[in-house]
Amino acid sequence: MEEVTIQFYVEGKTESPTKMVAKVREFTIVVDEPPELGGTNEGPNPVEYLLVALAGCLAITGYVVAKEKGIDISSIKVKAAGILDPRKFQGLDGERAGYKEIKVEILPEGNFTESELSEWIKEVEKRCPVSDNLKNPTPVEIKIKTKDQ
Amino acid sequence: MEEVTIQFYVEGKTESPTKMVAKVREFTIVVDEPPELGGTNEGPNPVEYLLVALAGCLAITGYVVAKEKGIDISSIKVKAAGILDPRKFQGLDGERAGYKEIKVEILPEGNFTESELSEWIKEVEKRCPVSDNLKNPTPVEIKIKTKDQ
Repeated sequence: MEEVTIQFYVEGKTESPTKMVAKVREFTIVVDEPPELGGTNEGPNPVEYLLVALAGCLAITGYVVAKEKGIDISSIKVKAAGILDPRKFQGLDGERAGYKEIKVEILPEGNFTESELSEWIKEVEKRCPVSDNLKNPTPVEIKIKTKDQ
Repeated sequence: MEEVTIQFYVEGKTESPTKMVAKVREFTIVVDEPPELGGTNEGPNPVEYLLVALAGCLAITGYVVAKEKGIDISSIKVKAAGILDPRKFQGLDGERAGYKEIKVEILPEGNFTESELSEWIKEVEKRCPVSDNLKNPTPVEIKIKTKDQ
């Protein structure tokens, strides 16, 4: 089968030093920082949205794989925690700016065997787009423009 | 300065094969797929939230760096596009499951020189946590549980 590519697109504009309002198709998504990180707390912050993306991706991929393999999964709960050292973000010496590690717990409900589950999770990890973008290097090209065209 | 780590946490539960409702502190975030990808279109999808996370992170880091360096930036617009080959997600042969590349345009407004901007963007890229998690490998540990404890 030939390669087909899909493009996804998001556009955001700051409304304060910690708040960005993003347009994703017809949806409006608010990004902000909590008060303890200097924000006005009108929405989750960027690294929390990163965990939302990962949790949602694992859940949706989980359904796709379960359906394909005929595994009876009726619902999926996902807990995702990320640990971060804020020093590099703050301009101090630090190992890396982003999460040092992300820990995920997946709690499927349904009627399945242990061997079905272990086959399922292997496939889910391999096929989940957000897992792939986190676990493996992803090219991010950044350009600055001073006039919107 | 000693290492201090911050933990961020998200919990989500599926409500249909394409819809997950996530709790992020006091916020409720809906993840869904658009109709053309088999969903019920109640919110952005996981790979769109990934772009929201990146755009928001670059904007907020942008303000932090501008303030530190005394660069006059009054607002920041960020456009982020990701290109994805869906075959691996679908269980077919494909290069990688996630974005092959992400292209970002940053449009700052304010009163700055070109050299200030080029110094600014270098620092922003280096210190933005989500950029780091995408550009460099991030450990993601996934565990399955069949009972919530």
